[in-house]
Amino acid sequence: MKELLIKNVLDTWNSNIQRTDALFNSLTNEQLENEVAPGRNRGIYLLGHLTAVHDRMLPLLGLGQQLYSHLDETFITKPDKAVADMPSTEDLRDNWKEVNGKLAEQFAALQPDDFFKKHTSVSEEDFAKEPHRNRLNIIISRSNHLSYHLGQLTFLKK
Amino acid sequence: MKELLIKNVLDTWNSNIQRTDALFNSLTNEQLENEVAPGRNRGIYLLGHLTAVHDRMLPLLGLGQQLYSHLDETFITKPDKAVADMPSTEDLRDNWKEVNGKLAEQFAALQPDDFFKKHTSVSEEDFAKEPHRNRLNIIISRSNHLSYHLGQLTFLKK
Repeated sequence: MKELLIKNVLDTWNSNIQRTDALFNSLTNEQLENEVAPGRNRGIYLLGHLTAVHDRMLPLLGLGQQLYSHLDETFITKPDKAVADMPSTEDLRDNWKEVNGKLAEQFAALQPDDFFKKHTSVSEEDFAKEPHRNRLNIIISRSNHLSYHLGQLTFLKK
Repeated sequence: MKELLIKNVLDTWNSNIQRTDALFNSLTNEQLENEVAPGRNRGIYLLGHLTAVHDRMLPLLGLGQQLYSHLDETFITKPDKAVADMPSTEDLRDNWKEVNGKLAEQFAALQPDDFFKKHTSVSEEDFAKEPHRNRLNIIISRSNHLSYHLGQLTFLKK
């Protein structure tokens, strides 16, 4: 039953990643320069934001070091258009794929019980009281975060 | 562990409902008449759409009859602006609350094992082969669907 649940959560995660990946692949660099709606984030910012948030899942889940910590300030700490010197769109597209590939590889290597272990931003003490603050919960939460921005990114399609 | 997983999924569902509910409450009827982005769905359509999709979860999960089946054609079958005769915004706001309240009540009455039972759109035969097609999977999937549209609805805020 545990395995089923993990499958449910990972299937949803993977499906969201695939849909978002297909969308990014279908958009040109020029389209990614556009705001998803007037006055809102640009596609390029959301590409960087999702990459940075997924990248931080590696240390958060205790699955390795963050690969591209230089993205944090531009795409998490600061809002869109606050940083003039952005990475190139091609680099961001590569980082996005790399990070999600790394996560997929790490998820595949976990044993079922591993998904119920604590994530690294909760103390042993708090985890004893709140055992739902486990790795799977982070994946569920980030999956919803991805859906949220995917709904916005879809507006970049004509 | 089963209970933890259910808690993880229901917490995410409830949090999405609360965020969306707070957003709808903060928007005037006039704001809901606006498109979330140029040429895209209006807020009122997404309110009806989410209400109808959540309403259909009742029969899909085997938790009761759909309450407002008259919404299906306008808000699921057809796209926005295809039906001239829409329900009033006040009625939709009430239906939205009613449907989510009913779901919350039904979820609270389920035993842990009940979440792993099949939903009603999968046959016994297929479920034997694909046991992940259970109720919890529908809740995970609809939670992501809600996040997707919540990301769009947030653009209605000034």
